[in-house]
Parts: sequence; C-alpha cells; structure tokens
Amino acid sequence: MELDLAFIGFGNVAQAFAQILRDHKSELEEAYGLRWKTTAIATARHGCIRSVVGIDLIEAAACVSAGGNLADLPESLVARDTLEVIERCKADILFETTPLNVTDGEPAATYLRTALARGINVVTANKGPIAFAYSELRSLAAGHRASFRFEGTVMDGTPVFNLVEECLPGARVLGFRGVLNSTTNLILTGMECGRSFDESLEDARRRGIAEANADHDIDGWDAAVKAVALANVLMSADARPADVDREGIRNISVESMQSAARSGMTVRLIARGQRSGDRVKLTVAPERVPVDSILGSVRGTSNVLVLETDLMGEIAIVETDPGIKQTAYALLADMTRIHEGPDV
Amino acid sequence: MELDLAFIGFGNVAQAFAQILRDHKSELEEAYGLRWKTTAIATARHGCIRSVVGIDLIEAAACVSAGGNLADLPESLVARDTLEVIERCKADILFETTPLNVTDGEPAATYLRTALARGINVVTANKGPIAFAYSELRSLAAGHRASFRFEGTVMDGTPVFNLVEECLPGARVLGFRGVLNSTTNLILTGMECGRSFDESLEDARRRGIAEANADHDIDGWDAAVKAVALANVLMSADARPADVDREGIRNISVESMQSAARSGMTVRLIARGQRSGDRVKLTVAPERVPVDSILGSVRGTSNVLVLETDLMGEIAIVETDPGIKQTAYALLADMTRIHEGPDV
Repeated sequence: MELDLAFIGFGNVAQAFAQILRDHKSELEEAYGLRWKTTAIATARHGCIRSVVGIDLIEAAACVSAGGNLADLPESLVARDTLEVIERCKADILFETTPLNVTDGEPAATYLRTALARGINVVTANKGPIAFAYSELRSLAAGHRASFRFEGTVMDGTPVFNLVEECLPGARVLGFRGVLNSTTNLILTGMECGRSFDESLEDARRRGIAEANADHDIDGWDAAVKAVALANVLMSADARPADVDREGIRNISVESMQSAARSGMTVRLIARGQRSGDRVKLTVAPERVPVDSILGSVRGTSNVLVLETDLMGEIAIVETDPGIKQTAYALLADMTRIHEGPDV
Repeated sequence: MELDLAFIGFGNVAQAFAQILRDHKSELEEAYGLRWKTTAIATARHGCIRSVVGIDLIEAAACVSAGGNLADLPESLVARDTLEVIERCKADILFETTPLNVTDGEPAATYLRTALARGINVVTANKGPIAFAYSELRSLAAGHRASFRFEGTVMDGTPVFNLVEECLPGARVLGFRGVLNSTTNLILTGMECGRSFDESLEDARRRGIAEANADHDIDGWDAAVKAVALANVLMSADARPADVDREGIRNISVESMQSAARSGMTVRLIARGQRSGDRVKLTVAPERVPVDSILGSVRGTSNVLVLETDLMGEIAIVETDPGIKQTAYALLADMTRIHEGPDV
C-alpha cells in the first residue's frame, strides 16, 4: 500500500525529512514495505497546494528555499489556505511542523483537530498542541481510529514517548528530570569555559541553534512546554505551560558558574516533573549539579531525560549534539510506527 | 487468552519476576489483557515438574528458597530433567534463566533450540545463547513462527534490543561503546575513592553484586559476552566471545586512578563494537575517560550504552543502580511484547 502524505509547514524539519525519504527510499521499502507519495503541502509564505499525481518533495524544498511559490510546481492544485488543504487533501498521514505558539498552541492544535476528525493519522513535531490540547486530541484520534504521534516534540528523534510506550510496558513513570533545551545548555556550557552570557548567546546564534530572539529559550518557556508535554503524555497530568514553576537562566553569572566549579559542580537548566498526590508538580529552573553526574555530563546542545519508574527503577536517555536531521528522523520513526498498524 | 508459562531455571531472577506477576496481576490484565498460569518449572537442584492445573509461583519460590523439592508441590507431575520438561510441557512462553556458560552457551542453547523447535515462544535472560547461537536460534524461531526475545541479557530490563527494534526503525547501528559490567564498575568506583582493588572487590561481594569467584567479571568476560550479544543482534555480526580483544581490570592500580584523577579523568571498563568493512571489531578494555563524560558519569553498579547510528546520530541509555528487580522486569517486557503478537 502506498501512503499519501500531506505536509503542514514545510520548513527545515520537513525539508530534512524529505531528504531522508529520498536517500533511504529503497531500504525503507525493503525493510518495512514503506511506499509513499505526497499529495499536499501547506505553508504560510510559499503557498498551499494539493496534487493528485504526487508532489516531488525535493523540488518543493528547492522552490521554498529559493523563496518561490509552490503553485509554480507542475500539476499542483492551488488551495486558499492551510485549513482548506487539511479539509480537502487525500492523505493517510499528515505531518505538522509549523512553529510553536507558546500562548495557546494555535493554529496548530486546530490543524490537528481537523485532520484527526477526518480520520487522518497525524505526526507532529510541534509541542504546542501536546502542551495545550493533548487529552482532547488523543480522544479525537481514538474516536476516529487515527494515530496521533509526536516523538519529535521532545529531544528530537531520540525515543522518549515511544520508549515508554513500546519498551516499558507495565511500568509507571513516577517522575522525570532533564536537560531539554539546547540553546540554554549551549550558553551555560559556554559560561563554564569563562565566556560571558552575551558571548555565549552570540555563539549559539552563530551556530544556528538560538534564534534572533532567544527569550523563549532563555526564560525557560521551551523547557516548560516540553515538561508539560512529558507530564501530559507520560504521567496523564493534563497540565498547561502556565502551571510550570519556571525560572530561566538570565540571572546566572560567570562568577556563579566559577563558584560552582570550585566545588565540582556546574549549573544546568533542569525541567522536573514529580507526582504529588493527584497532581504532577512541574518546575524549570537552573540547578547546581555535580559536573560528573549524568545531568552535568550533558554539554553543548546535548539533552538528557532521566525517568523514574516503579518497575524499572531509574533510566536515562541522552541525545548527543542533535541537529535538524534528528528531528526529521522523529517523523520517520512515527511514520513507520503508523504504517505498522493501529495503536493497541 | 490465558498464557501458559514454563520456567527453565528458577533462581533469583525468575523468583523476582514471580513477585512482579503477583503484585501487578490486575494492572497487567487491565492494561494488556495479560492472564497466565504456570505449567512447568525445571531446576537443576530442586526438581523438575509440570502441572495441568497451574503451579503457584510464590509457593514454588518459597519451596526453592527453603531448599525443598518442587515435586512436593500439590498436583505436580514429576519430570526426569529439564529437557523432558521442555519436550513435554504445554507452554506459550518459556522463560530461560539458567546460569551463563561462557565456553559454549550450553546447555541453555539446547534448551532454547528444543523449545523453539516446538514452536514455543522463548524469553531468556541468559546471554550465552545469544553470544554462541544467535543467528541459528533466530532462524529456528522464524521457521517455527515463534518469538525469541532476550532484553534481559544486556543491561537488565533497560531497553536495549527493544529500543533499537521498536524505537529506531530504519536507523542502522554503526557502533557502540558502553559500561556493561556492574562488578568491575563498582570496583573502579571504589578505587576512585582511594580504596584498594581487594577492598573494593570485597565491598562488591558484601553487597551481593560480585560472586565468590568474580574472575569472570574482573577479566572482562562478562562484558565481552555482552558486547558479542550486542554485535550479533544489533549489527548482524555473527561474532563469538573469543573474537573479542579483551583486557580486564586486574592491572589497574589506585595510583593509576589517582594519576587519571589529577587530569580530570577516570578509568572505566569499556566494551566497544565498531563496524570495520564486513566485520565488527569488538574490544573490552579499561580506558581513561573524562570524569564529566557520560561514560565517566556512570558510577557504582550503573551501566551505560552509547549507540552510534546513521539516521539518529548518537544516543545513550543509562541504567542507574540496577538490581535483580530490573532483570526480572525484562522478562515482563518481553512477555508483554510476545502477547501483543508475532514479530513483523
């Protein structure tokens, strides 16, 4: 069976995914029987199209990179906007990779609602909908016998949600702690080496890790939204980003890093979730941790998540120096999982 | 459907698993529809029995712990030996937890062959058969439409094999490195704190981690067998323990640990697998690593495995302070996976 794919958002992540699909086409068909064609792409600035014969993803990526309009691609049916694409496309899987809206997760949450209500399987790399509408979207998916997958929302393609779902059956997640934001970790690591906050931030921008406006990372919002996603999915928390007791890294000075270093410690921005009665207490804050601890060992853009469980004790998963390719891989992992059949 | 379970070997791991099954009976039925009864137990020193009505695992554990003979349990049919049990038992899953034989993996490999040839699904926590007969057993399982699972053979119940199989679809493992043996890591960690090799070994014995004869751990055999298991399963290596370039920790002195510490380093017994042309090069040796690296951060009985992959870059999984309960959990994870249906 050939899968029809639709893309909502077609930026770096989706384009890197297109590359993986092209480069691994024959292995994926051989190993998993995966075959596909692209039936729709919707973007905010480069047009929205559908296609009956199939869109060449590499051509589409070239068009978008060159600032063109997708309507110029051969045999494309132009749509008015993203919602029209979602309402009318013929798709087995819809990949949603639009930017995060940290206020309410919109319009991405509406995109996913619309797709799931049509029974289209959804893969998203956008943590907004998970932080603001997870339980609703999950019920909607179940009601329409559609899959709803989102491995790429936390720690890129590193197995986090799939790890717990597939590999820790019967175990209950009691709590978690982790370094989940690459920009702040790169800044803190820079300050460990004696560079100032501003120099370290500039370095993160030069390397393409931090955006021009990195407040969202520095003030701990990105980590908070990820903590909420983890709590909602792994601990049935039904939390929102505003529920997180959140402190960013603005007040960390080189002096405080050096003082920590003198006692074998360093500073990391740690996101924590801990069950407390019926609720899950969520915090994001800079913490002193031993340099030779697992949290301290994660430097640069690397991430780590430590999971406390009842049956399996404590395990941690680490992602080393992630790039856009790792986020794109999450889309592939989710696509493969959907292809294997409905969730049990 | 009620699963019929058979146990080959009924020591600490199987008994801890029996405890999990008892303590989580209702959750496992509710979440996974898991129901079971035990139809056979074979031991080397406490008899071999089958049962039509089902054996109470907790009673069996008490009997074995008290040095009794399983034949004394009610309604048990006495069998001559383990092979007779495997040949005659009515079982959907056979759990094999006999001791490792580092020379040839026998008789465990024969037990598994016999069970798989009867079409019985097999779960083992014994790395011998994986190190000596993996490809044969895998083919046998496929030929008889049986599952063959062995999560507990490396890093206890921490997802390693299931992690790659379930969560890293399409990705190729290019290499690995890890701290896989708890006894040597506990000794090295003790020496970090200034204790002698012998004191640290004695401490490991007191804590029940090292056996009376710990040569197998100290000389790197345990880590080597695990490296072979990883290479055979994750990298299709068809290697044997004798293929591993192996060096233990006997020559590590407190002085060399202190000298490493002066430059921010420590020593870990590292198992490595690296693809090199058609072969996988396997080594186990003490290595100097930075104290603040992920390999250095693993202390005491904790383990870590770093996987290099093509599509997902480098990820690591860490198990903190494992105990017998974590190995027992591997049996549950494998049992749940088998219950979900045949491998694709």
